[in-house]
Amino acid sequence: MTTNPTSAPASGPRPSGRTADALRPVSITPGFARHAEGSCLIRVGGTEVLCAASVEARVPPFLRNSGQGWVTAEYGMLPRATHTRGDREAARGKQSGRTQEIQRLIGRSLRAVVDRRALGEMTITLDCDVLNADGGTRCAAITGAWVALALAVRRLRQMNVLAADPLRGQVAAVSCGIVGGIAVLDLDYAEDSGADADGNFVLTDDGGIVEIQATAEQAPFSEAAFTSLLAYARAGTAQLFAAQRAALG
Amino acid sequence: MTTNPTSAPASGPRPSGRTADALRPVSITPGFARHAEGSCLIRVGGTEVLCAASVEARVPPFLRNSGQGWVTAEYGMLPRATHTRGDREAARGKQSGRTQEIQRLIGRSLRAVVDRRALGEMTITLDCDVLNADGGTRCAAITGAWVALALAVRRLRQMNVLAADPLRGQVAAVSCGIVGGIAVLDLDYAEDSGADADGNFVLTDDGGIVEIQATAEQAPFSEAAFTSLLAYARAGTAQLFAAQRAALG
Amino acid sequence: MTTNPTSAPASGPRPSGRTADALRPVSITPGFARHAEGSCLIRVGGTEVLCAASVEARVPPFLRNSGQGWVTAEYGMLPRATHTRGDREAARGKQSGRTQEIQRLIGRSLRAVVDRRALGEMTITLDCDVLNADGGTRCAAITGAWVALALAVRRLRQMNVLAADPLRGQVAAVSCGIVGGIAVLDLDYAEDSGADADGNFVLTDDGGIVEIQATAEQAPFSEAAFTSLLAYARAGTAQLFAAQRAALG
Amino acid sequence: MTTNPTSAPASGPRPSGRTADALRPVSITPGFARHAEGSCLIRVGGTEVLCAASVEARVPPFLRNSGQGWVTAEYGMLPRATHTRGDREAARGKQSGRTQEIQRLIGRSLRAVVDRRALGEMTITLDCDVLNADGGTRCAAITGAWVALALAVRRLRQMNVLAADPLRGQVAAVSCGIVGGIAVLDLDYAEDSGADADGNFVLTDDGGIVEIQATAEQAPFSEAAFTSLLAYARAGTAQLFAAQRAALG
Amino acid sequence: MTTNPTSAPASGPRPSGRTADALRPVSITPGFARHAEGSCLIRVGGTEVLCAASVEARVPPFLRNSGQGWVTAEYGMLPRATHTRGDREAARGKQSGRTQEIQRLIGRSLRAVVDRRALGEMTITLDCDVLNADGGTRCAAITGAWVALALAVRRLRQMNVLAADPLRGQVAAVSCGIVGGIAVLDLDYAEDSGADADGNFVLTDDGGIVEIQATAEQAPFSEAAFTSLLAYARAGTAQLFAAQRAALG
Amino acid sequence: MTTNPTSAPASGPRPSGRTADALRPVSITPGFARHAEGSCLIRVGGTEVLCAASVEARVPPFLRNSGQGWVTAEYGMLPRATHTRGDREAARGKQSGRTQEIQRLIGRSLRAVVDRRALGEMTITLDCDVLNADGGTRCAAITGAWVALALAVRRLRQMNVLAADPLRGQVAAVSCGIVGGIAVLDLDYAEDSGADADGNFVLTDDGGIVEIQATAEQAPFSEAAFTSLLAYARAGTAQLFAAQRAALG
Repeated sequence: MTTNPTSAPASGPRPSGRTADALRPVSITPGFARHAEGSCLIRVGGTEVLCAASVEARVPPFLRNSGQGWVTAEYGMLPRATHTRGDREAARGKQSGRTQEIQRLIGRSLRAVVDRRALGEMTITLDCDVLNADGGTRCAAITGAWVALALAVRRLRQMNVLAADPLRGQVAAVSCGIVGGIAVLDLDYAEDSGADADGNFVLTDDGGIVEIQATAEQAPFSEAAFTSLLAYARAGTAQLFAAQRAALG
Repeated sequence: MTTNPTSAPASGPRPSGRTADALRPVSITPGFARHAEGSCLIRVGGTEVLCAASVEARVPPFLRNSGQGWVTAEYGMLPRATHTRGDREAARGKQSGRTQEIQRLIGRSLRAVVDRRALGEMTITLDCDVLNADGGTRCAAITGAWVALALAVRRLRQMNVLAADPLRGQVAAVSCGIVGGIAVLDLDYAEDSGADADGNFVLTDDGGIVEIQATAEQAPFSEAAFTSLLAYARAGTAQLFAAQRAALG
Repeated sequence: MTTNPTSAPASGPRPSGRTADALRPVSITPGFARHAEGSCLIRVGGTEVLCAASVEARVPPFLRNSGQGWVTAEYGMLPRATHTRGDREAARGKQSGRTQEIQRLIGRSLRAVVDRRALGEMTITLDCDVLNADGGTRCAAITGAWVALALAVRRLRQMNVLAADPLRGQVAAVSCGIVGGIAVLDLDYAEDSGADADGNFVLTDDGGIVEIQATAEQAPFSEAAFTSLLAYARAGTAQLFAAQRAALG
Repeated sequence: MTTNPTSAPASGPRPSGRTADALRPVSITPGFARHAEGSCLIRVGGTEVLCAASVEARVPPFLRNSGQGWVTAEYGMLPRATHTRGDREAARGKQSGRTQEIQRLIGRSLRAVVDRRALGEMTITLDCDVLNADGGTRCAAITGAWVALALAVRRLRQMNVLAADPLRGQVAAVSCGIVGGIAVLDLDYAEDSGADADGNFVLTDDGGIVEIQATAEQAPFSEAAFTSLLAYARAGTAQLFAAQRAALG
Repeated sequence: MTTNPTSAPASGPRPSGRTADALRPVSITPGFARHAEGSCLIRVGGTEVLCAASVEARVPPFLRNSGQGWVTAEYGMLPRATHTRGDREAARGKQSGRTQEIQRLIGRSLRAVVDRRALGEMTITLDCDVLNADGGTRCAAITGAWVALALAVRRLRQMNVLAADPLRGQVAAVSCGIVGGIAVLDLDYAEDSGADADGNFVLTDDGGIVEIQATAEQAPFSEAAFTSLLAYARAGTAQLFAAQRAALG
Repeated sequence: MTTNPTSAPASGPRPSGRTADALRPVSITPGFARHAEGSCLIRVGGTEVLCAASVEARVPPFLRNSGQGWVTAEYGMLPRATHTRGDREAARGKQSGRTQEIQRLIGRSLRAVVDRRALGEMTITLDCDVLNADGGTRCAAITGAWVALALAVRRLRQMNVLAADPLRGQVAAVSCGIVGGIAVLDLDYAEDSGADADGNFVLTDDGGIVEIQATAEQAPFSEAAFTSLLAYARAGTAQLFAAQRAALG
């Protein structure tokens, strides 16, 4: 009953023509949100996310007088980022469960590489807004949010606000899944909507795992399948870490 | 007690160095929202608004079986489009009064140039999302939304969905105000926040008035002052109509 | 394409039999809300609005320690003030965009004639509740709210709470519109629902303009049309200023 | 520990100077809400409630195709009906528990005297809005709502919409309580806020009990005390039934 | 027109086979909510309510610096406590009017036997959650909540937090009603849904009345009928007081 | 920087005295919610969750006329299930992000073992309400919800409503984590709140993976660490599958 991807050749008939192990083209443009302390527009194939970091000199109540800072995220999708128009969450009066799940994930992912004592009692909020969606928006948001965060931290350092660097490393995310029985890297929307299984892998540049969320969309999958997804994720995030470094100049 | 702008020379000390009658640089990039039936990114100085038109083959309940279509708009601002981060309306659980006022204005402005019988029982929703804000966002939204609407209509016409052209003309908007006792065109944020009076003028390319909203921010103003604002608005929108036509190619 | 009212004789066939330049009968009864610091019931034809001023010795956060006061308004309509019953906003769980737009307008209009330094750090809230609606409710609310405000200020002065008079003049509002091609003053519901264009004019007793909101309901209108509406508004508010003074005794 | 009112002479030192068994002056003005099918403004001392009946030719889902109608009520209080301004429920975004409790009570009370089969599949909604509050607002609302309902029914009968009279009798309500150890009829605000016990009695003109809600505000009370409250309620509602009949002419 | 129960023999054909004056089997299990300062699971026939008392060292704003404490309650029903699944109130985004009415009743009932000065500035919240419903849930909640409250008070006394005992007596509640023309004690769901009249009686162990809520569900009822319901309530609560004492050991 | 659990002996100093590979005592009592088509009370150590299955003969809009059914879940926690009282979500007016995340997980997990074609156009809703919480509530909810689902399915089969068995196997969940540098199975609250990393593993009885959610709470963890967590999860769910089968008798 479990899904077990065949050891197919790495060049399957993906809708985009990509090989199974190919990431989509990635570009990261810093400074898109002109007022933000750090920002970028990240493009991963047809997915575009505007990531903006806002620094505030206060922390949530549970951290007051703790000497520690906070990093959090909010996520949104413009109504027509998708094939058919979705409701505007502000008009519906609440954020969906999916939205809340994603923004909690982004926040946790970034905090895993932040030394919150070095940050001091400041809050950095990462707004990740999807302008165009073609699969993998939460992963692009994490990867771009790290760049926005790093730019904001650099600015705080230049202003001599921070004595030490609160960033302990890079974090990036990529999705991997089993589509038509074959493990593939970086699913686009066409693949994502019909995948057998789907996983988001949040990894650090020194090889650590920050978060794994793997879900059987159709039938349960095997441990072997899972292992091959994780291997693809390692390869994919390696490219994303390079793109992040390039964007920081 | 009323404000009456002096007949000062048209080149006052505006923060941006512009003369009193100068519009900011305008650019309109069509197709920014790839999935939308029509879209553009409009830039007016430092203000950037993404406008996307979505077509649906249904109308609100009050128009069912009327043979008429509907054109409506929604407006939003990304949390960090502004100097300091604003609350995300989806997170707060409701749209502000300002947001609702603006999206009602955009909808009315577009409907004034649409023949809703020619549209048939379809709804076109214009999503106007501010990516960067530097004053005049509602005016930029109206001007850009008209372009997105025109592109969507063109596409429907090309698909032979519409027998006749529902667009009866162009509509655009610009703000004018009295700043430091002098009437000026197209206020940026620095001017807007300290203006004596402030007006938004929605005009058509054949000289008609669609909507005027003029407000005394400090003290009441004179009828003469109002007349000079309207004259500036005519000159400013003439340039916007040209930019709209250029964007449509 | 623009609407341009004919220079018709001032006695057209209005549904009410009024001439084009005739205001409806106005009455203002002070003291209707017995607990309020100032209040009145204003009747303009079939429109009845209860306006009540509440004084509180505190200001919103953005004015704390500023030495300035605040004047704000809330607006509501009883569910059966209208021909058919409307939803109760409290039951629906939110105020409509229209309600929010109106209460923002009332607040701005009143603040335009208040010296907020002379008021000191106090807040006066004007509740405007429509008991019966027959067109022009927002204008009646502004005109009546000024009376309630003036009564509250008089009481504060009698109590020696205010050293100087914070009221710099009178403010009143009236609607004018183009109905059946003819410019008319003070539209009732029958006229309002079929008007070509419709404007609300908020003016001061010394001839200043506080706010103009003019909207093309059907087709854009000409500048000449607009000018004639403004002239009617001046004549209409002159009568309202007299009624306000009479109500204050 | 229980409260047991002394057999004091019926003329105690009530704040209003009334004797213990005295109702406040009652007046019922029909037709206050001009658009409603039936309405009245009821005044009981300083308490004023506008009651309006709205008739709709539909029933809630649970009554569809049942051949029975529905009678329901909504209740509201203008923000400055009270000594100090209360929040506007529409602005807060929800109705308080107290508001919901009261409107459920009004609806139940009216339904107890309505033959819902004779009404047919129609809904009559009674809006009860307190313009001025001085204690006993829910009781005044019930008493006035019955008049508005009766006027709406009379109108439907005159229009030959109803074959039979759906009204089986009159219903009215009054509060009684124990104040300072003495049982009194029709508490005003000054008494209500310091009462030992407080009850609302909804009775019919033929002597039936529709609803009793009696509450110990301070300490539990005795059965004897309760009995004397009920006796006062009978006497008070007898006067209210007469006032209702007078209002119907 | 009023309902007047016949002097039928006390053994009528109740759905459960009980005699008219028979309470359902009652059991009270202390300590069900392991983390709460006091708790119990109360079963009255097929109705099961989990009652948990939470103590916090703070009071609502209106009691700050008053030297008095507060006792309040919240009520909920699991979605499938009933025959058919009900909406989850948290998912619907608001508590129903019924829920709010019940939790206000529970809070008032408990406060009637609490010396809030002896409690000091502490708040005790009683959460009453219905796990299985078969009529009389609000009465079971009051009876069980008193046990949870008493256990929490005992614990506070053992910890020497309270110098004096804030409990002035016991409070319990039972429903009585007229079903098929006969007065009965402790209605189950089958009886409740078809009752002519229905009352909830909240009484104290020393014979005081805390709250009476009696409602005609079909037709108004007579005073004699009401008197027989109250007599049954006295007999029923006597058994509940014994069960409460037994549960406290 | 990554966490890598030492190959410590399997008997570490866990707060509960358990060995690293020991599950807490599990008990599953069927039939707790008497009205539900299937239900159980599951206890895993100090965690208690009431799981109830409700069957409805309708599907969400997106499945109408698809021939397929739906299985979904809702999750809640009684306010005093925890050490300190939490807000009631119904009172706050919305479900937290955590709640929504958990109920989405439960629904996905159950659907992974359901043949939705065999179910036909019916919806089964699993309500999972935490009565007492001591860590691992979402895992206990999944494990218990499967039992409630299986009981409901059995009942539908006995009623001859379902021709084929829609259950394709068992699903259960357990948490594993790294605490104090050591991998452990089935974290209780004391361990969970201080864990270095934490994962929830949803597995099927034939060895398939349904969902993995592993999160670094402090620092990123290694792939080796992850592998040991997965091994523990396999061992733990084996015991849960046995408990499920025992509960079904």
